[in-house]
Amino acid sequence: MPLKKNRNKAYISTPFLICFLTLSFIAQGAFADEGMWTLNNFPKKLVEQKYHFSASDAWLHHVRLSSARLAGGCSGSFVSSSGLVMTNHHCAASCIEQLSNSKKDFVESGFYAKKIEDEVKCPEIEVNKLVSISDVTAKIQSATKDLNQKDFNEKLKSEISKIEKECSAGSEQTRCDVVSLYHGGIYNLYKYERYQDVRLVFAPEFAAAFFGGDPDNFMFPRYDLDISFLRVYDKQKPLKTDDFFKWSQSGAKESELTFVTGHPGNTSRLLTVSDLELIRDLKLPKNLILMSELRGILTEFQRRGAEQRRIAKGRLFGIENYLKASKGRFLTLTDKKFFATKVAQEQSLIKKINSNPKLKKEYGSAFQENIEANKKLKDITYELDFIENNTYGSKLYQIARALVRAGDEIPKSNEKRFHEFTDSALPQLKQGLFSTAPIYDDLEISMLTFWLTKLREDLTADNAFVKKVLGQKSPEELATELVKNSKLRDVNLRKKLFDGGKAQVDLSQDPMIAFAKLIDPDARRVRKIYEDDIESVLKKNAERIAKAQFAIYGSQTYPDATFTLRISYGQVKGYQENGHAVVPHTDFTGAFARNSGKEPFALPESWLKAKEKMNLSTHLDFCSTNDIIGGNSGSPVINQNAEIVGIIFDGNIQSLGGDYGYDESVNRAVAVDSAGIVESLDKIYGATRITSELK
Amino acid sequence: MPLKKNRNKAYISTPFLICFLTLSFIAQGAFADEGMWTLNNFPKKLVEQKYHFSASDAWLHHVRLSSARLAGGCSGSFVSSSGLVMTNHHCAASCIEQLSNSKKDFVESGFYAKKIEDEVKCPEIEVNKLVSISDVTAKIQSATKDLNQKDFNEKLKSEISKIEKECSAGSEQTRCDVVSLYHGGIYNLYKYERYQDVRLVFAPEFAAAFFGGDPDNFMFPRYDLDISFLRVYDKQKPLKTDDFFKWSQSGAKESELTFVTGHPGNTSRLLTVSDLELIRDLKLPKNLILMSELRGILTEFQRRGAEQRRIAKGRLFGIENYLKASKGRFLTLTDKKFFATKVAQEQSLIKKINSNPKLKKEYGSAFQENIEANKKLKDITYELDFIENNTYGSKLYQIARALVRAGDEIPKSNEKRFHEFTDSALPQLKQGLFSTAPIYDDLEISMLTFWLTKLREDLTADNAFVKKVLGQKSPEELATELVKNSKLRDVNLRKKLFDGGKAQVDLSQDPMIAFAKLIDPDARRVRKIYEDDIESVLKKNAERIAKAQFAIYGSQTYPDATFTLRISYGQVKGYQENGHAVVPHTDFTGAFARNSGKEPFALPESWLKAKEKMNLSTHLDFCSTNDIIGGNSGSPVINQNAEIVGIIFDGNIQSLGGDYGYDESVNRAVAVDSAGIVESLDKIYGATRITSELK
Repeated sequence: MPLKKNRNKAYISTPFLICFLTLSFIAQGAFADEGMWTLNNFPKKLVEQKYHFSASDAWLHHVRLSSARLAGGCSGSFVSSSGLVMTNHHCAASCIEQLSNSKKDFVESGFYAKKIEDEVKCPEIEVNKLVSISDVTAKIQSATKDLNQKDFNEKLKSEISKIEKECSAGSEQTRCDVVSLYHGGIYNLYKYERYQDVRLVFAPEFAAAFFGGDPDNFMFPRYDLDISFLRVYDKQKPLKTDDFFKWSQSGAKESELTFVTGHPGNTSRLLTVSDLELIRDLKLPKNLILMSELRGILTEFQRRGAEQRRIAKGRLFGIENYLKASKGRFLTLTDKKFFATKVAQEQSLIKKINSNPKLKKEYGSAFQENIEANKKLKDITYELDFIENNTYGSKLYQIARALVRAGDEIPKSNEKRFHEFTDSALPQLKQGLFSTAPIYDDLEISMLTFWLTKLREDLTADNAFVKKVLGQKSPEELATELVKNSKLRDVNLRKKLFDGGKAQVDLSQDPMIAFAKLIDPDARRVRKIYEDDIESVLKKNAERIAKAQFAIYGSQTYPDATFTLRISYGQVKGYQENGHAVVPHTDFTGAFARNSGKEPFALPESWLKAKEKMNLSTHLDFCSTNDIIGGNSGSPVINQNAEIVGIIFDGNIQSLGGDYGYDESVNRAVAVDSAGIVESLDKIYGATRITSELK
Repeated sequence: MPLKKNRNKAYISTPFLICFLTLSFIAQGAFADEGMWTLNNFPKKLVEQKYHFSASDAWLHHVRLSSARLAGGCSGSFVSSSGLVMTNHHCAASCIEQLSNSKKDFVESGFYAKKIEDEVKCPEIEVNKLVSISDVTAKIQSATKDLNQKDFNEKLKSEISKIEKECSAGSEQTRCDVVSLYHGGIYNLYKYERYQDVRLVFAPEFAAAFFGGDPDNFMFPRYDLDISFLRVYDKQKPLKTDDFFKWSQSGAKESELTFVTGHPGNTSRLLTVSDLELIRDLKLPKNLILMSELRGILTEFQRRGAEQRRIAKGRLFGIENYLKASKGRFLTLTDKKFFATKVAQEQSLIKKINSNPKLKKEYGSAFQENIEANKKLKDITYELDFIENNTYGSKLYQIARALVRAGDEIPKSNEKRFHEFTDSALPQLKQGLFSTAPIYDDLEISMLTFWLTKLREDLTADNAFVKKVLGQKSPEELATELVKNSKLRDVNLRKKLFDGGKAQVDLSQDPMIAFAKLIDPDARRVRKIYEDDIESVLKKNAERIAKAQFAIYGSQTYPDATFTLRISYGQVKGYQENGHAVVPHTDFTGAFARNSGKEPFALPESWLKAKEKMNLSTHLDFCSTNDIIGGNSGSPVINQNAEIVGIIFDGNIQSLGGDYGYDESVNRAVAVDSAGIVESLDKIYGATRITSELK
């Protein structure tokens, strides 16, 4: 459940995974199943050495085209020639929730389109298929060469926007992203086919998908059926495709070689010590405290009644998932031994740089400059987070802000815009902005009140911005006024304001629009400080450090995760925990044994009814050594024949510090077994339309 | 508002204060107004050097007897010959809340007993007056000499219980506490007169006492009237006393020498680096996360309605206060420069110890042993906190547990009991146990659910203890059952069970009693591990380190705070903040200017009505350099003539790291001015009965 990457800055950030120990910039030969490798730099030799499997280019090509990205922060796989896509339940959860209402709750009851006509469009899901990767390093590095930090950063952004625009050539069907790998050591252009007509085909009940709930989250053994099926449509018809993964009926065998192809969101294995200190001492504790309070608010909000329980469920899940993952990361960063290793590695690199006059001249100052930039970042972190980055989930405010900014940004030339308003980014922005997903006043007021209360608390009541925003009003009073009086629930109004541009936005009397306009100058101010004085330094130095590392250690390694397609290799394998062996598989017998009938340990009615006719020894979940992290949710687990043997949905608790490194002895990815999927689709859900399509 | 020390382990721990920099074991001469000095080791010379005031023994004697301790975690002062005691509003808040109900809310409306007959008894307030201090170091150290750690700890506890029992000689009117100063360097016996008949005389509205609420908490300038008046009764009559502080009508003047006599609860200035690391990396973050979630729950709980708002108010205040203080402490401990200073000081001490063969032999191993003990503590912290130390505020469970344990403990000889069940401790235990304070089901269920949910989350669902406690039930289900079916709301039943002892308790069918019995063996088990393997090591080594410090640095210094009477000296003084000068006084004009009419910035009706007739330039609050911390709440601020010029209620934000050190440049205690008190009692509240008693 926890591996979804949430890219929406305005809400909750990513759940992260994976444990430490090797920590190396250099993946050390074939010793460990470490690494989230790019598809154009697959470590063929390492895999051949260790597993005696040689991946052909055709194999890699097929695997790439059969993989899918869910632009909201997940992974998936094409599993039929008719555009059927498999992902996690928690990756489709927002869609399932958005299609539900107080009368019919598909989160609770599950969803199954018996006929193809019953498949329903998801308001906000975009699927991407990676059709090509090309190298644009020389182009970008020559454009930014010798520029100082602020100019470097501006030029970098505008060059990226330019390349992306040229690549998509005006087509909203094509998505082009310039990806910075090795923190700027290499720039690649990723070209995708973009699909926004994605329909819900099947989802089990939340109780089955997330059996064990928060207490079992990041735990293994595990008994979750965290799957859903979507279908990609092209011109109102199911997408015809030659590239899709075939299905393995038998599932994943112990010790079997497995590959995971997916989109790990973000790792920090190559960050400097001063970056990590800031995360450990400020960012993580700050967010843990804030999100814990919000968790409490939503937990108690749910007690207001059944409808409140329903509408807050998805959000609360996201927060709890984030919290558990972040606690793991904090645990890793406060581990003295771990941190000492990081410091020693950095010191060793600095020593090597300084001992070579050429390297010293070019890269010697990078670490100290980062320390200074991180000091500045520390000073503005609260302002940056409260004014620019976060609103803790008020959708109406996010909409208002997007409209206000669109009015200002879109008239600019493509290269001068904020990156989220470039031509390349607009289709996804518009999908969110014009989404028909319901907006709930109660929840909106709660979230907005929380944001305003924390804003006042953390920036203090006497802060000029706080005074400007709140005036004489209390946070709750202002939030209630804004939510109750805003008309932005109306999608047509949003379209009118978007299409009418700044002139139309300026005419609007909507209080949420006025509120967003009030805030925007301050938000731009603090973003500018961040981009010009901090991000620019950190980015430029990250690039310099990457180059120094290439020069010293060579380039046969993998880059930090960037929510782009990666492949990891590993095997189905148990591990030792507190002195006993954890076997790599669970089965349906175990699930029924764990059922207490009380949430979150209550299996749904459908399972209880089907129990008699099931083969209970069928594998349900398994764990493997594959190196994954948040964003890998929904990734296919495939065997050597590129057949699906499972689907990633979690990592074990030992893997929680994996943002910073990987430890093969206990680090495990957790997946649903393909055999368990077919068993449940057939026996529990009677979803034979899907299973026949898979076969 | 934040300086109350909460000693109730079962609920929220202490808010701490005071900033860093000097950090020294040795208070460095007359350089800074640092130190919370014991009354029998007052730094006469330092004060005379710096302030040209010579404190006579008679002055110190008078000051000691005029000071009061509120056993629940606060300080106070006798201010008339008829037992009138002044303390903070937030120190009497639990009483004010307990005397209120859904019809009449004295927290909201304030309280004033116009006639002496209208004074109402507080269910749970105990006032102590310190009548003597004697040295028992030799007695204790000879009893524990050469014992190994576990035996040392047991012998230490039993010797303390023995001395305390002898001292009080069977009288419940006498309270005797053996106090470990300098972490065991010195043991003193503190003998108090104990008063449990304490009545409420006056309290302003919460809105006046805590004007500015959480946003202004720990801020200065400030505009709070955080006062209340109680009266100590002896044999149903107001206590007659010769020792009380006279009142200064004019209040505190800028630069004036001020003394604070009160009961700072707890400081950590003498802790070792491994102690501090555990606080920084585990204890503080853990508690910040837990308490933030509870804050969210209670915030949203209050939105259920007016009654829920009322009954959760005090608890939420306590949590928010704790959180703000703890964030300050965390900020200090994650300050690299600060922590490096601590490490350097410890290294220097270790070097000095090791360079002297005798010292090395006696004390050389102490620091390493502490590191090992802290590793063990790290491993059992969650168990210890969830099973033994904390229930996050369920009163019914605390009552049940006290009854169950009383049945087991009281039959033992005094020396063998848990310390909270020794003869010396029983009067306070019984006051709480037999309190008539109301218990609210809704709140009980919420708190118990929270505890059980976190228990399962942090110890994991597969933990044997968790399985035993929850069985097949959900946390909410179990909590609801226990609270709804327990009869322990009935004080007579509690008396019957207490008086009947174990036999009676064992006969009880009360589900909360059964629940407490179910938990107790595990709680005792983990407490025993803590006491035998960890506390014993830390205590013994703290004593060894203290002795080494005495040997190396001499003994002219002050011990860490221990919730015993201390005196600090300083002066009324402003400071610099963000480049501008903060003046040391505020007045009523400022309070009215800050009034927005919206909580928490809404002055009560009584103030608005009285405005016309008031002298608005009268000083309301002020700040001084006195070194204080949580527990000092309600402490009198006195001048050279031992006249009251104010009452401590807070520290500024800069002082929040003061658990670990003191920085005179910005560290400020915050007090209500005696002039502002009289002005408001006379003009706003017409409380002339009090002001005439004060004059």
